[in-house]
Amino acid sequence: MIAETQIAQFDSLTLDNGVTLRDITVAYETYGALNEARTNAILIEHAFTGDAHAAGIDHEGKPGWWANMIGPGKAFDTDHYFVLCANVLGGCRGTTGPSTVNPATGKPYGLAFPGITISDMVRLQKLLIDHLGIPKLLAVAGGSMGGMQVLEWAVAFPDAVEACLPIATTARHSAQQIAFNETGRQAIMGDPDFQNGNYYGGALPARGLSVARMVGHITYMSDESMREKFGRRLRDRQDFSYGMDVDFEVESYLRYRGNQFVGRFDANSYLYITKAMDYFDLASGFPSLAVALERARSRFLVISFTSDWLYPSYQSQEIVNALRSRNHDVTYCELSSNYGHDAFLVDVGEQTEIVRGFLARCVREFRSLEAVR
Amino acid sequence: MIAETQIAQFDSLTLDNGVTLRDITVAYETYGALNEARTNAILIEHAFTGDAHAAGIDHEGKPGWWANMIGPGKAFDTDHYFVLCANVLGGCRGTTGPSTVNPATGKPYGLAFPGITISDMVRLQKLLIDHLGIPKLLAVAGGSMGGMQVLEWAVAFPDAVEACLPIATTARHSAQQIAFNETGRQAIMGDPDFQNGNYYGGALPARGLSVARMVGHITYMSDESMREKFGRRLRDRQDFSYGMDVDFEVESYLRYRGNQFVGRFDANSYLYITKAMDYFDLASGFPSLAVALERARSRFLVISFTSDWLYPSYQSQEIVNALRSRNHDVTYCELSSNYGHDAFLVDVGEQTEIVRGFLARCVREFRSLEAVR
Repeated sequence: MIAETQIAQFDSLTLDNGVTLRDITVAYETYGALNEARTNAILIEHAFTGDAHAAGIDHEGKPGWWANMIGPGKAFDTDHYFVLCANVLGGCRGTTGPSTVNPATGKPYGLAFPGITISDMVRLQKLLIDHLGIPKLLAVAGGSMGGMQVLEWAVAFPDAVEACLPIATTARHSAQQIAFNETGRQAIMGDPDFQNGNYYGGALPARGLSVARMVGHITYMSDESMREKFGRRLRDRQDFSYGMDVDFEVESYLRYRGNQFVGRFDANSYLYITKAMDYFDLASGFPSLAVALERARSRFLVISFTSDWLYPSYQSQEIVNALRSRNHDVTYCELSSNYGHDAFLVDVGEQTEIVRGFLARCVREFRSLEAVR
Repeated sequence: MIAETQIAQFDSLTLDNGVTLRDITVAYETYGALNEARTNAILIEHAFTGDAHAAGIDHEGKPGWWANMIGPGKAFDTDHYFVLCANVLGGCRGTTGPSTVNPATGKPYGLAFPGITISDMVRLQKLLIDHLGIPKLLAVAGGSMGGMQVLEWAVAFPDAVEACLPIATTARHSAQQIAFNETGRQAIMGDPDFQNGNYYGGALPARGLSVARMVGHITYMSDESMREKFGRRLRDRQDFSYGMDVDFEVESYLRYRGNQFVGRFDANSYLYITKAMDYFDLASGFPSLAVALERARSRFLVISFTSDWLYPSYQSQEIVNALRSRNHDVTYCELSSNYGHDAFLVDVGEQTEIVRGFLARCVREFRSLEAVR
């Protein structure tokens, strides 16, 4: 199926920092059909550098980032569900972000873009869901930063979501997670081409953004998956260079992925979205995570992966324990995988079975908004 | 005790890459006294960014990097042992490296410095040991890259070392370890001030070197030690900046440590020494690590730390298993610590007891070079 990116426009959104953002565009894609009762909609949340193109193939033939999970007969079965995915606020793939032209100045926002949060992203998605005429989502699902948005949906709009699937995620960014993000930000802001964020139309802060992405890639893989994929294999050579050239396959791979990223992602979006992740703490303003989750009304399927050291299983278990302490309907699966944090994207065999079964139960037991009220 | 850095000069050293390096300076410090039989010398190997100042305090009052382990009554007891430590080849703290003036050109080597290996570092140390008239070392000890040098000593000069103490280290750099190093190198070489290594006398590649150090710092700590030290505490503020300022303590700490590093370490040394680590594979040229270690004649004490994810315990266990398979005298201790890779530097209580006991046995059972022959 060819996926068409669609556009929705909203007049304004008041952000957590008090600023009102105006003339907001949201890019989104949908797959499958909304049923007459409007009870089969599933919102997919993308991770940090993802976008609205979650499934199918686009006009350039590029498959969606979760095409192995979304489609006819797949975990999120588009023969039965109406699946949608929107680029997040602050992004650079169609939704308003720092690279968007500021209507007040006629120039891209750059660092004049207001600071955003995971909660802001989710409130904008709620406007989209309302705009599409969906009273209650069957499910909200996503991995990594997508999982943070799922958790935020559960507490911000408890009556609007039947089931929540936070995957390979956390209820709050840890010091180590903040530290990795800060390293990427410093690499970008230290690039002279960054020009305090006003690089549009000129040279991009390519070296800084590339280094930021290299660090990211290491954290997305596991020690073991890197050993399996690269080991100590040399790249197109029989002996060491004894210089600063590429010696090892893994060096070549990281340089390639870093450079490739520059062509598809905006450095200012990198800054704003990593800050939003770092700010995320679902328990903020509450005595505990359990109290924060008291207001949730959804069923939960929480998934983590054994080799994921960026969002380790203990962080998922904190969510599960908090939910259980408030007697929520929660299923937890720690899946065995060597792929590290990337597992939720690439190692989807077991994940597919578990999601499929969980969604089937949620369909059977769907509580309409009216029934809940 | 005030530690005095001493200097030794050597005419030449032929490196693994075939190049002969000339007019080599080695900076070293010694603590305690060499006994008449010359059987109480312990060579301490420093880690990546360490230097010869391992113990005591220098003229500015700065303690050595392992002052908690070396001194009267400490693990390496200078009342009994003659302890010495030399800055490595390629370093920037007194020993010849890329910031040294090339006698052939009258300018600093920069990237004209030849590529080096852990083996080259160790062969230069052997020249120093010969120069000091020490026929056989009681022990060679070090953590991280220091441990790699220890292992290299064991196979390169098996008759010249009674005991080897490789700590928090590996017999070969993994793809993940290479990847982290490559990220740092790209950060440095991507800095426009790097000027292809010819930055001496001009602006330093400070931003790149600082980012490289930030990445390093994250890998030296553990998730848990970062949580304990910083958590999500904000830095001198009550609410988020919603901009790109420092919000969290951990961001402030990393920026500070990154900037501080620029003042004490040379970017070209960073490149050369990380390459030497990445090249390190003790089993290279042998059918297996066990075969490589067959030639060793030392006793071994191998130490790793539970929370060290940069040099995880399994890498120490590979060394131990290879040694045991060849019936070597080996003791292995996995010490419980939350401090991550930094544990060998900062969490030295148990380490002290274990090293002290091991060294006492090595003194009792010391096999003189003559006795071995």
